[in-house]
Amino acid sequence: MHHEHRTARRNFLKKASIGGALALSIPQIVSAGMAAAGTGNEQPAGSARSRIKLKEGAVVLFQGDSITDAGRNKEEQSANNGSALGGGYAFLAACELLYRHAGKNLSIYNKGISGNKVFQLAERWDQDCIQIKPDVLSILIGVNDYWHKHNGNYDGTVQVYRDDYRALLDRTLKQLPNVQLIIGEPFAVNRVKAVDDSWYPEFDAYRAAAKEIATEFKAAFIPYQEIFNKAERSAPGSYWTPDGVHPSLAGANLMAHAWMETIEK
Amino acid sequence: MHHEHRTARRNFLKKASIGGALALSIPQIVSAGMAAAGTGNEQPAGSARSRIKLKEGAVVLFQGDSITDAGRNKEEQSANNGSALGGGYAFLAACELLYRHAGKNLSIYNKGISGNKVFQLAERWDQDCIQIKPDVLSILIGVNDYWHKHNGNYDGTVQVYRDDYRALLDRTLKQLPNVQLIIGEPFAVNRVKAVDDSWYPEFDAYRAAAKEIATEFKAAFIPYQEIFNKAERSAPGSYWTPDGVHPSLAGANLMAHAWMETIEK
Repeated sequence: MHHEHRTARRNFLKKASIGGALALSIPQIVSAGMAAAGTGNEQPAGSARSRIKLKEGAVVLFQGDSITDAGRNKEEQSANNGSALGGGYAFLAACELLYRHAGKNLSIYNKGISGNKVFQLAERWDQDCIQIKPDVLSILIGVNDYWHKHNGNYDGTVQVYRDDYRALLDRTLKQLPNVQLIIGEPFAVNRVKAVDDSWYPEFDAYRAAAKEIATEFKAAFIPYQEIFNKAERSAPGSYWTPDGVHPSLAGANLMAHAWMETIEK
Repeated sequence: MHHEHRTARRNFLKKASIGGALALSIPQIVSAGMAAAGTGNEQPAGSARSRIKLKEGAVVLFQGDSITDAGRNKEEQSANNGSALGGGYAFLAACELLYRHAGKNLSIYNKGISGNKVFQLAERWDQDCIQIKPDVLSILIGVNDYWHKHNGNYDGTVQVYRDDYRALLDRTLKQLPNVQLIIGEPFAVNRVKAVDDSWYPEFDAYRAAAKEIATEFKAAFIPYQEIFNKAERSAPGSYWTPDGVHPSLAGANLMAHAWMETIEK
């Protein structure tokens, strides 16, 4: 197993090398994943044409399900608060934003809630998004829209997901016309615990819908599936997500690094 | 105030620019701080002669006071556990280690305890260090050794701090002869809440003692004071530490980035 893993890693590094001379580090895998998925982040470092520029005093809001929630303290309402930001990618990206953009007086919130599907974001959107008046709104939603249907606990289809998502963003842009959107691709790591072949190809349609909507709404798109797929070359899928859906600390940081690629440095 | 801050930043960037052409980003400030303090990390990127190399299966232990503790869940004993790692620099450095060194099967622990002085580390050292058998041991201790004395709640001097610290490391190396040590400099940000001119020059002697001990024990040394001083050029001291002693999220990430500079990439 260990030997196989080493061999897979060597083959991967060989394939991924640029001109055969340079192996990719994990951080480079994130950048390569972003570029391969055609996210508009293909520019070399320094050229950040399509990245989101954070203005002085910008409000950044993370929205989503349990992956975003990550055990946050829902009693705490203040910005830039460690417990309110949870213990996942949103916390890690927030720490990196506050560190890299120290002079900008950012206010960062996490309002992800475990178990949410897109219609449940809509139910709490006035309070948990519109009233916060984000300048940058990051949404990661969709794995439950599929998963709960797969488990027989929800009857929404991918069409419902797409329609609800589109309606949510139409409503958002009507009330916050200048908001800059970041849409994360729903992802799952196949053959890790909760996830098996029965998820496919149906789950892929949710990923495609999120990407379609990102393009339609001119959002920055984070190709998490591609990034988790690539990360499997350096450690097994279960290293990045113990149940196939929820990231480990390493997986959360993989996501945070990918998230940061959407922001102008 | 805002204008002054802008001017200070401009002046700083001017002074810090290399050949007048390149301004330093915050991440570069960390590297520059490490180099300026003569930590043996002066090599250009890629030359990592003096950095700590993490071996396959390495155990990494963070030890210290409240800055390391950062609200960790003390009931949870497992390695690489989010709540057990707290919400400070140790958590952030752990996430970065697990991400960057994904293939190495690292086990990372945080056993910092709020309020601890060096003699209190000694009291719990068998259980909270020796039995964990760290390959890499990171210690940040000393601000309470001074602060509690300053407040009249402790009668240890800097000599006691130095002697206790030396005895602790002698004992550690006797039981763990191959452990690689990282010693963090105690730091404080003057004129922020808990910290004022009355701390100086006495507090500086604790910083000097930590550095002296790091040299004596061939430990990697993290010059946190220099790093916080430099960070003040891009945002006020209270941005990095709201009370002068405990870091904000931005300050914790500043520390984590500095910590990562001690490790071979």
